[in-house]
Order: sequence, then C-alpha cells, then structure tokens
Amino acid sequence: MKKLLVIGIGAGNPDYITMQAVKALNQVDVFFLMDKGQSKDKLIDLRREICDRYITDRTYRFVEAPSPERERGDVDYKTSVDDLNLAKQMTFERLINEEMTDEQCAGFLVWGDPALYDSTIRILQAILASGRCVFEFEVIPGITSVQALAAQHKVPLNRIGRSIEITTGRRLAAGQVSDADSLVVMLDAEDSYHQVADRETQIYWGAYLGTPDEILISGKLGEVADEIERVRKAARLANGWIMDTYLLRKP
Amino acid sequence: MKKLLVIGIGAGNPDYITMQAVKALNQVDVFFLMDKGQSKDKLIDLRREICDRYITDRTYRFVEAPSPERERGDVDYKTSVDDLNLAKQMTFERLINEEMTDEQCAGFLVWGDPALYDSTIRILQAILASGRCVFEFEVIPGITSVQALAAQHKVPLNRIGRSIEITTGRRLAAGQVSDADSLVVMLDAEDSYHQVADRETQIYWGAYLGTPDEILISGKLGEVADEIERVRKAARLANGWIMDTYLLRKP
Repeated sequence: MKKLLVIGIGAGNPDYITMQAVKALNQVDVFFLMDKGQSKDKLIDLRREICDRYITDRTYRFVEAPSPERERGDVDYKTSVDDLNLAKQMTFERLINEEMTDEQCAGFLVWGDPALYDSTIRILQAILASGRCVFEFEVIPGITSVQALAAQHKVPLNRIGRSIEITTGRRLAAGQVSDADSLVVMLDAEDSYHQVADRETQIYWGAYLGTPDEILISGKLGEVADEIERVRKAARLANGWIMDTYLLRKP
Repeated sequence: MKKLLVIGIGAGNPDYITMQAVKALNQVDVFFLMDKGQSKDKLIDLRREICDRYITDRTYRFVEAPSPERERGDVDYKTSVDDLNLAKQMTFERLINEEMTDEQCAGFLVWGDPALYDSTIRILQAILASGRCVFEFEVIPGITSVQALAAQHKVPLNRIGRSIEITTGRRLAAGQVSDADSLVVMLDAEDSYHQVADRETQIYWGAYLGTPDEILISGKLGEVADEIERVRKAARLANGWIMDTYLLRKP
C-alpha cells in the first residue's frame, strides 16, 4: 500500500527537527512541496536544506505542485477556506495517484507541527473518507513557533494552574477570544495586538523564530506595541515575507 | 559563568528528542533530577536511557534531589502551590551553589516542553530576580504530550480558523473553561471528562503517549467515557502510575 508521512519539521531552526522526523525523512521516496506566495522560494530552500542535511544514502525526489490560494476580497471567509481546501484535496489526490507507485513512500514536510493550523491531516482524512485514494499515513509531531517563542523569551506559556488559549489574529481582531490570561496569537497579518484594551498586558513577540533573522521584542503593550508594528513592517519589507507569533499575558 | 540548560526531552518516545536537545545534552556536566511519587523510578530510568543513547564521548553525572511535594488535603490550592514552588526554588539554589563549579554546565531534563505546565523556567527566573545565584540559562523546546496525542490520533488540534484552549482537569471539573470548540485537558487525575454536559462531544484520549505502553481511545463521550475510566484505572493499577491527556471537540 502507498504510505504517506506527514512530517513536522519544526519552526525555522533545522536543529528543531526530532530524531523521529529524521528517521521518517529517510523512508521517503518523493516529497510533495506545496508552498505559496512570497515566502515560497525561501521555504522550499529551507526544506531542501533539511533533506540535504539529514537524509543519508538514499535517493529521493521533490514534486512541486502549485498551491491553490484562498480567494480574498468580497467573499465569505468560511466559503473561501472551504473552496481552498477542496482545491488542495484535488491537488493531493492527483499527487498521490500520479506521482507515486504502490510500494512507495511520500512525505509532506510541514513547518511547525502538522496538528496546529495546518490542513494536511484534515485533507488526508477527507480523501480517505471519500474512498478516492487508498493509502496509510502517519503523523510526526514537530516543534511549533509557539514553543520556539516561549523558549527564546524564556517564559512559560501558562500561569500556574491556568489555561492557555491559542488563537488567530483574525479572531483577536474580531473580539472572539476568551478571558484566558495567557493568549497565544498566530497568523496575525493585521497587528491585532493594538486591539487589546488593557495596555498593561505583557506581550512576548517573535518573528522568524529559530532562524538567523530572528527578532524578539517583549514588554507592556502600552510601551512596545508601536515598536513591534514598526519593526514588523520593516522586516517584512526587507525579507519579502514575515512569519511571527506572540503571547499576550494579562497583568 | 555557570550555565544551565532546561532541555525539553519530549513526551515518552526517545525519538521525540530534537537535534537541538541532543546538542544540548552533549554540553552538560551534571544533570539535576527531581522526580517524585510513584512515577519517579520509571521517569528517572527513561532520562538515563536518553542520556545513554544520545551523549557521546563525554562524562557526566546525575544528582538526584528529593522533589518537594505539594501539601494536600485541607489547604488552599494556591497557597500549597506557592509553598511548593518556594521549596523547589530553595532546592534549585542549593544544587546550583553546591553541585556545579563556575565553568560547568548543568542540565534539567524536562518531560514534554519546559514552557507547558512545568515550573523550571519560572523558578530559574525567580532565582535570577532574587539575585541569590548568578548564572545564564537557555530553554530547549520539546514535543509535548498534546502533540503526541494529536499525532497518534491523526487529528488536528484546531478546527479551521478556530481557537484551542489548553487547560487542566482541575479547571474543567470546576467549570472554569471557555466555550472553545477544541479543549485540551492535561493533569486530570479525576476523570473530569465526565463533567462535560454534551455527550456528543468527541474525545481523543491517550495514555503513556509515545511509549510501548501507549493506549488510545476515541469516540463520543456518551459512548466511550466509561471505557476510558475503566481502562485508565486498570492501567494505573498495573503500572503504578499514569500520564494521560485528551482533546475534547464539540460536535
């Protein structure tokens, strides 16, 4: 049977890769790469570097597929995401059907952890449920940018005995967050930390975590929010893309 | 200056260790071990096995310190935790002052990730703030049981674009959780999943994740909650200890 490995390769630093992921990389015949947008080339280079570094005595190939993009602008968010996932599913089905044989093993290299804000697992489960391809798959966890953020700032994610909420910039901006005293925000393209009412809230912000370009800023929102916005904008301009995340902790 | 490394060694499976953690292990002169309770011997054995496996051409030693235990019974939870952390802080100070020299590197081996429900980072920051010891420290993230749970069940932690709350069994039992549709519960000694009103809620439960003793159960609460309680009780009896976690997903 065809075998697929969904391999979390960690957030940025090639040393974040686990021994389990290294073993998985060394079983793969073909890697399916599906990046998009401005970060595409950089992220594909980083994946190739990881394969170069950790795969020994084995030939493997890359198949790059154009990643479908979400329709933006005047369209309902949920609908655009559903459409995107359907388009991705069709791309995955084509790759599985056409780009590997029954005895082969294919790998998806996922930044961070495949279980956190990544669609690969969901799409593979949908394909299996549809019966349109037959395969088995495994998931290999990886270090997320959330963990890299906490490690680099040397802070715990939670207060003692308290909860943590992990959410998106979109939800923070829309006020759709709980009153958890530790809030981790991912995928924020809109500087949504400005929306937080209590400016005594502590923010731990990080961009390009685990890479040589890493930037860390922390402090009270009232004191550092403008600096973060300025630094973020300049870094995105200089690099052509940005990946960042932050922890908000109530005073 | 004294150097301390707080090393996340992942949840159970020695293959969950990262390359960064392996490099960190190979810098350490002395490991400080502080386990407690029934799981103590097993967990110390697993740490020794990790050091045996990954440390090459280097001598190192272990110093075991009795871990203070939280006072239970008729005492306020917050007070008992504060007392425990103060006792731990004093133990850490003694280890740092007495068990390493200025040129040495000490390591704390933390299950999972040091940023998630672990007190090591908080205690080291408190010691630095007190000025009672001088050292520098680094944090190395590790794969948590939450990530192992999602990987082994092959489910994403979040619904598309939605939030995740990570919390404790204590808070779930007390009703102190938000209405996040994905709720991860850790440190639950009391089968608190029985408290969830909607029995159509999906539970993904796992114990001894990543180890040969791993147990996975998933299904609707109304159908599997009693089975989980039974299996959990039997496993804890058989092994003398249990570490488990679960994801609750609203229907």
